[in-house]
Order: sequence, then C-alpha cells, then structure tokens
Amino acid sequence: MLSVLSDDHFMKAALQEAQKAADLGEVPVGAVVVCKNQIIARAHNQTEMLNDVTAHAEILAVTSAANYLGGKYLDECTLYITLEPCTMCGGALYWAQLGKLVFGASDDKRGYKVHKERVLHPRTTVIHGIMENECSALLKEFFAAKR
Amino acid sequence: MLSVLSDDHFMKAALQEAQKAADLGEVPVGAVVVCKNQIIARAHNQTEMLNDVTAHAEILAVTSAANYLGGKYLDECTLYITLEPCTMCGGALYWAQLGKLVFGASDDKRGYKVHKERVLHPRTTVIHGIMENECSALLKEFFAAKR
Repeated sequence: MLSVLSDDHFMKAALQEAQKAADLGEVPVGAVVVCKNQIIARAHNQTEMLNDVTAHAEILAVTSAANYLGGKYLDECTLYITLEPCTMCGGALYWAQLGKLVFGASDDKRGYKVHKERVLHPRTTVIHGIMENECSALLKEFFAAKR
Repeated sequence: MLSVLSDDHFMKAALQEAQKAADLGEVPVGAVVVCKNQIIARAHNQTEMLNDVTAHAEILAVTSAANYLGGKYLDECTLYITLEPCTMCGGALYWAQLGKLVFGASDDKRGYKVHKERVLHPRTTVIHGIMENECSALLKEFFAAKR
C-alpha cells in the first residue's frame, strides 16, 4: 500500500503539476516542496506563459516556498521534481541550502550532474529515479507530439 | 575620453545598480542589459528584500530584458554585471542564449567558471575584468562593514 507520506506520494503531486504544464503547452516538468510532511509549494514550468527562461518549476517552487516560510533557506524542506534539475536550478537549490532533493527522470544532457564540481549544497541529500518511467513518459509524449 | 558606448560606460551603469543594492543592505552586485547600444534592463541583487535566493541581479535582469523585448532570448544583448555570475546565473544565461557577457570582478569560489564543463551558451562571448577594481572594492567595503 502506498503510504500517504512516501516519496511516491509526493512525486505524484509533482507529476500532477507537470501534467498542468503539458496541458498549457509548456515542457512538462512539475515540482512540489514538502516541509514537515506537508506540501508548502507547488509549481510547474512556465517559461512560455511568462516569456522567461528562468521560470523553471524549481525556481518558482523555491520562491514560493520561501514566501510561505518567511525565510530564504529550505534546509528543512524536500523538493520533489519530475526531471533532474538543470545547472541553473541546481545552482538555485545550492543557495537555498535545500535539505533533500528527490527527482524522477534523469537529464543526461542538461542536468546539473553533467558537472564534476559540486553544484548542490554539501548538506543536500539526493534521491533519484522515483517514478522515473511516469516522469519521463510525460516528457517523451510532449516532445513526440511537437514533431 | 570615455566613449558613451564603451564597456566602461555600461559597467558604470551596472556599478550604479550595485551601489543601490549596497545602500539597501544587499550584497552589492548590479547589472544592466544592453541591446543595440541601449540599456533595456537594470537590476541589482534583491535577495534580502524579496526574501528569495533566486533574486540575483542577473536573474532579475534576464526577466526584465525578456519582458522589454517580448521574447525569451537575449542573443542580441550584452549583460554587464559587476561580479562573475554564479552557477545559477550562468545557467540562466545559457537558457537565455545571451549574446555577450561582460563582468567586472571574478568570483573564484562561487563563479560559474569553477566548472570545467560548459555553463554558458556556446555562442556567448565573454569579456571580464572591466572596472574590476571598482566592482570588487564595493563588495569588499560591504563585507568589511558587516564584520
């Protein structure tokens, strides 16, 4: 049985955000920020709607979570994101001193892991591959439909 | 004589932005975006005021410039920034496909150049060290006063 507080549970919420992006014609990437087992921020990629390359789900989620918490640092938070963060977003998570990062699909081309030198904060723990197939299927469908 | 359209001229405008940040108790980093010899965006670091680690001068400048242009890409623009962009901001400039980056002071610890793998867009040209002393002096004064 799926525990309410499992990584799968929260990744499903991130996937719902990614689906919203897909429905709006945005590259389908979604995120939620969890603090003390509660979702405190939800965001999806909005680069097209906002006409802004910086409007990745992670950036919007970090801004939203900090706003909710009244503090800039997310060291007690977990960010669930359907796709491995890019260099920009990995850098943002560094500054946020994120407690834990959980991502679904890997991004071998644009993901922060292409860098050998550290991108994330040294205290950030990382889990990846949660609901990887669902997360990457949404992206594959999106780009297949674009062609 | 200082040409009106020189790198020094535009870096002075970025330094004015950095001074605004200093006056507000923000880490003094400032930016301007120039397109066709005209300043189309001005920004300074606002991480404290906005309570948001992503509110670096470059991120705000990219958002502002895209808003002015009505398009996401800054391939015909030059970003002047008083300090070498961090990993996050370098990643943002990649997505913006920035035409030219001009920075003043280097940041050997947090600058995007710590990464051996490419951070900026392959078509971005880079000039650094413009008004380096003035740019770094502002930062040094700020941190000296903090201690």
